[in-house]
Amino acid sequence: MTLPYFEIDNTKKKSTKARSGKLITPHGTIETPAFLPVGTQATVKGLSSQDLEKLGCNIIISNAYHLYLRPGISIIEKAGGLHGFMNWDHPIATDSGGFQIASLAQSTNISDEAVTFRSHIDGSIHHISPEIAIDIQQRLGADIIMSFDHPVSFGSSSSELREAMNRTHNWALRSAQSHQNDSLLYSIIQGGTFPSLREESAKFIDGINNSQGIAIGGLSLGEPKSTLWEMVDISVSSVNENKPIHLLGVGSPEDLVIGVGLGIDTFDCVLPTRIGRKGSFYTKYGRINITNAKYKADMNPVDEDCDCFTCSNFSRAYIRHLFKSQELLAYTLGSIHNLRFIMNLMSTLRLSIKEGTYEEFRSIFLSEYQPANEAKRTEQKKLWQVNKQTTNPLVPPFENLED
Amino acid sequence: MTLPYFEIDNTKKKSTKARSGKLITPHGTIETPAFLPVGTQATVKGLSSQDLEKLGCNIIISNAYHLYLRPGISIIEKAGGLHGFMNWDHPIATDSGGFQIASLAQSTNISDEAVTFRSHIDGSIHHISPEIAIDIQQRLGADIIMSFDHPVSFGSSSSELREAMNRTHNWALRSAQSHQNDSLLYSIIQGGTFPSLREESAKFIDGINNSQGIAIGGLSLGEPKSTLWEMVDISVSSVNENKPIHLLGVGSPEDLVIGVGLGIDTFDCVLPTRIGRKGSFYTKYGRINITNAKYKADMNPVDEDCDCFTCSNFSRAYIRHLFKSQELLAYTLGSIHNLRFIMNLMSTLRLSIKEGTYEEFRSIFLSEYQPANEAKRTEQKKLWQVNKQTTNPLVPPFENLED
Repeated sequence: MTLPYFEIDNTKKKSTKARSGKLITPHGTIETPAFLPVGTQATVKGLSSQDLEKLGCNIIISNAYHLYLRPGISIIEKAGGLHGFMNWDHPIATDSGGFQIASLAQSTNISDEAVTFRSHIDGSIHHISPEIAIDIQQRLGADIIMSFDHPVSFGSSSSELREAMNRTHNWALRSAQSHQNDSLLYSIIQGGTFPSLREESAKFIDGINNSQGIAIGGLSLGEPKSTLWEMVDISVSSVNENKPIHLLGVGSPEDLVIGVGLGIDTFDCVLPTRIGRKGSFYTKYGRINITNAKYKADMNPVDEDCDCFTCSNFSRAYIRHLFKSQELLAYTLGSIHNLRFIMNLMSTLRLSIKEGTYEEFRSIFLSEYQPANEAKRTEQKKLWQVNKQTTNPLVPPFENLED
Repeated sequence: MTLPYFEIDNTKKKSTKARSGKLITPHGTIETPAFLPVGTQATVKGLSSQDLEKLGCNIIISNAYHLYLRPGISIIEKAGGLHGFMNWDHPIATDSGGFQIASLAQSTNISDEAVTFRSHIDGSIHHISPEIAIDIQQRLGADIIMSFDHPVSFGSSSSELREAMNRTHNWALRSAQSHQNDSLLYSIIQGGTFPSLREESAKFIDGINNSQGIAIGGLSLGEPKSTLWEMVDISVSSVNENKPIHLLGVGSPEDLVIGVGLGIDTFDCVLPTRIGRKGSFYTKYGRINITNAKYKADMNPVDEDCDCFTCSNFSRAYIRHLFKSQELLAYTLGSIHNLRFIMNLMSTLRLSIKEGTYEEFRSIFLSEYQPANEAKRTEQKKLWQVNKQTTNPLVPPFENLED
């Protein structure tokens, strides 16, 4: 079966679930697997819409919660939707705001009916139900929208997870019932890191008829990578293979390469731009930190293999100088390189799938690419959790707070 | 007489000193009058070299003091000079660092021989003489370099001013004696706001044989505008009319229009980019502050008359949103608009001089353009002075500390 908005075009025999395809949205068709840069507040940090086009991005993801609070939906509607507001003519996905309400909002009160919370910006009180979350995303004019969900933090008990999952399922049904424009609605799987809950959630979400896509949520919240992939595998295996599948908030280079093999069609993550703003640049051998003293007088580009604006024009020494001097240009150049690296990686992944060489590519990539140290990563996430709990004790701790 | 590096090409009769010309430098010829955007740390804040080209900038000014301290001259030499380092093939001017040492450095000890100071970055001790300042600028590969000077703050006594002026004259002679590459050396006039000192300084500086240009320093430090223009007029009237004249650190739109009429050929100022980063945008009627609530839902461009990237692509509502959300893109868009406004203004000024309509243009421009309130401006500068005196009591207070 081929859905009218999603064509899976790889025909070669394969032993993984990697697939290439086309996702057809109101603002254009995107080739999958694809990565969606995150433009939380109607801008991918440090970049204009025109910069994104030059990077080869043709879809981004923004955030309903942030835009609802600021500048407000009526202003964006007046601009002709998010596309007009940010002058971007290509597809836009939006996250529903469930995650941000749980992680950013204050005095959050969650009932089965809806969420009442105080804005993290000005303390004003707001009320969001699944119906309102869908209405907001439709008024934003997004091409791909997400059902309203209730994610909880890694380490929650199975009873907490079950309660939040059941609520998420109910909200997914209500989201689908209220969805009424030509956007593609993705329903979000939750269930934490308990295999049985995850499977139950995936099957429930898959059973929602009037939903066009599947999103996997509630991961990359501090669990080990092996657990992340186990949950992704359970989720993908439990849903209709014809629907497009999005993995929310996951997107280091090795994650993208591995995720594609597990059947993920689209990804979004703040990581490339966030670490780019901190001087961490992707190469095929792993990240390099450009502020390292060894690059002080290094006149080579950051990455010899890269065709991006940053690598085509500037040396490691110059970029290091910009970071050490805290110049704004540093953050833009870092974001450009890392996003271009990811766009090129996705392009290579798509080609390898089409040519039946994905597994070979994955093997070479993973043997060359040195991921960020997992122990250090876990430790860092714990620190973030502590920080978040200090500032907002009522709310589960989450990553991804800046974007 | 026509100098080999400066051609004055306007032939029309005129009752002002406005003149158009060509300044020929090792990295190319620039049309004058011209404005030099400030790239203190080898970047105009928020913009790449390629952004500057698109704005129609063909010369910038950087800063020897900042680059000497960070990243260090040897690194920039290794990159092929400042042009190679920042990937900019057009002319570059550098300021010698006298102003920055006086305003930014710590524990400054000024003798007639040289200045000893502590770096404002890491507290390391440095020693700069006129000869070293020239050597640094030559090693940077700048096209236009400045003599080493000793500016003092507005409000200094005539004896302080005379001492600093005499030192500046001695240093200008030593700067000229040590200048030995094909760059154009500009010697700096000081003398504060005392007409007799200013005239004496201008005549002395004009008498230095092996110096190619005249720079007017020590102004825009808190004095009233009428005093600024009186000092500029005295300076210009006291020097050889064939040499190019640069006015240091002056550059609001009305300043550029007025300064041109007093015979200034080139200007530099951080103002367009600094205020652009704060949401203040130039229009021909004056500045507008885009963060004002009245622009919340305004879908017009910032400036209907402007052809810049910002005005061509984004609405006031979107730009206001970026500023309110403290998004990096806001600072870039503000800098782009304001610099393009200034570039267009300079282009109009050049054309009006060539066509003999400068006075008419000035009259129309000044009747339409509402400058920032002078009383408020003066008050603001006093506040900066107090702040600077608190953090660095030994050193006279100055503006322009950020760039």
